[in-house]
Amino acid sequence: MNRRIRVFAPATVANLGPGFDVLGLALSRPGDELEAELSDRPGVEIVEVTGDGGQLNCDPHRNVAGRAAGDVLRRANARQGVRLWLHKQMPLASGLGSSGASSAAGAVAVNELLGRPLAQMDVVLSAMEGERSASGTPHADNVAPSVMGGIVLIRSYEPFEAIALPVPERLHIAVVHPHCKVSTSEARRLVKERTYSLDLIVPNIGNAATLVAALYRGDLPLLGRSIDDRIIEPLRATLIPGFASVKAAALDCGALGCSIAGSGPSIFALSDDHAAAQKIGDAMQAAFRTAAGLASDLYVGKVSADGARVVEHAASSIAR
Amino acid sequence: MNRRIRVFAPATVANLGPGFDVLGLALSRPGDELEAELSDRPGVEIVEVTGDGGQLNCDPHRNVAGRAAGDVLRRANARQGVRLWLHKQMPLASGLGSSGASSAAGAVAVNELLGRPLAQMDVVLSAMEGERSASGTPHADNVAPSVMGGIVLIRSYEPFEAIALPVPERLHIAVVHPHCKVSTSEARRLVKERTYSLDLIVPNIGNAATLVAALYRGDLPLLGRSIDDRIIEPLRATLIPGFASVKAAALDCGALGCSIAGSGPSIFALSDDHAAAQKIGDAMQAAFRTAAGLASDLYVGKVSADGARVVEHAASSIAR
Repeated sequence: MNRRIRVFAPATVANLGPGFDVLGLALSRPGDELEAELSDRPGVEIVEVTGDGGQLNCDPHRNVAGRAAGDVLRRANARQGVRLWLHKQMPLASGLGSSGASSAAGAVAVNELLGRPLAQMDVVLSAMEGERSASGTPHADNVAPSVMGGIVLIRSYEPFEAIALPVPERLHIAVVHPHCKVSTSEARRLVKERTYSLDLIVPNIGNAATLVAALYRGDLPLLGRSIDDRIIEPLRATLIPGFASVKAAALDCGALGCSIAGSGPSIFALSDDHAAAQKIGDAMQAAFRTAAGLASDLYVGKVSADGARVVEHAASSIAR
Repeated sequence: MNRRIRVFAPATVANLGPGFDVLGLALSRPGDELEAELSDRPGVEIVEVTGDGGQLNCDPHRNVAGRAAGDVLRRANARQGVRLWLHKQMPLASGLGSSGASSAAGAVAVNELLGRPLAQMDVVLSAMEGERSASGTPHADNVAPSVMGGIVLIRSYEPFEAIALPVPERLHIAVVHPHCKVSTSEARRLVKERTYSLDLIVPNIGNAATLVAALYRGDLPLLGRSIDDRIIEPLRATLIPGFASVKAAALDCGALGCSIAGSGPSIFALSDDHAAAQKIGDAMQAAFRTAAGLASDLYVGKVSADGARVVEHAASSIAR
């Protein structure tokens, strides 16, 4: 019998407030699941992808989990291969780091199967290899928190350095995913093709620095004030029907801060209390319906302290 | 007899690394001194300015200390006036916050004489009024640390919010002031007239956020790595003869990080040890001489935990 493991990798909120490409957090839910087992045949085989509505590729070179898995095999100089079953349990192109979670799941699963030859930071790098194939650019504010859990700051890409930040105990997050699509590559083009004046840059630097101070101080009102993005949000808000109404609804309902999750269309809001976060999320969903006629999903929870992890071992039913 | 006080206000390093307009620290030395006493005649009288080589104006409306002092009188609804004696003890237009220190001294002195009617944050705002008259734009990363001491983060200017950050115990700073001039307004024009791409902005946001994390962690190597400014330093370095050689000398000598102080021409370097900071400063002075034929002053010390403060009481010899 071959040992098969099941890994859960959390969804994430990247581009957190003023921290475009540098700040992200892991959500307690949703997330992706991936089953994996070693194989005597070298390389990566993707046996099955479920929950994707037929949108994802089973070619391991064109699937983010497959590429991340392959990169771990390469870094670990593994002679064996892996077989993967990817179970998408979160919406694609939602702003919640769907490809990042699949990448994280692929990298963590293979590292586990091989007996953890790679340090966590190398697992993040392998997951970035998967994410790169989805987005075309190497960014880690989704994959790093999906691998590491918690709230993660990316100091530098060359060389790569990621820093785990403290998570205030009472922090709760409401994330609303409206049923509309924003193309990640279009959302990136929109902000990459421009240049920005210091009048916009200085407040973002000040607020990103403040966000970190607020986490260390455990000061949630200060954290809320730091969710103030002058650079990206005004541009990407135009891609999200009803954005202004939904943000106003969140803040009117007492949210400490509110902005776009990842490249959208999901919107997140912060609170210091679970019931309040639920109420804020309800108000955001109502605003999406009223302002834009959009149905939506709501996720309410804390930051996940854990990143991608084994959730269940199962004996493989497939003969070698 | 009228009570006369003497206030010392520390020089500062503003635009700290990646934190243009948002991060600054107070130096233990140099600094400005200001004597002040209340007067029955309303408004501000500047009796004397020494140490300025005749460059500063004694008109209280055209002198930063005078304007800051006047702003405290206004905020406190004082019926009395003040007389000021300003003793410049640091170079003008050096990048060490000379006008910010004079502004801080003026504001703090008057607030002391009046029995501290204003909270510290209002004293900072009054000092900003002084600084504004020197630079034309309201920025606080000089005046806030000169008033408050320590390392200060400016989250926002509208509304104004400044945050005191922790100062690692072993942090030492070498600042070298070469004997050449950089106009603050020219240095600002150079960076304000342009716009910047995300390729430059993202690393600065990541490093400014990291700088804060490093202070809370007391991680000096991480603090050093965060002194990485892609936006401002490359432009302003062109205004400082020998900059590249001086920075290379500092880093070769073991500096944790090195960049321009304020708008230059002074250059600062960080170290975790006093003797090492002295050696780094010596190497920077030698590099200024060799690379640009410039003499310089060197200041070595810790971050000043104290901001502008009364250092000596003296009975006035001037009759009311």
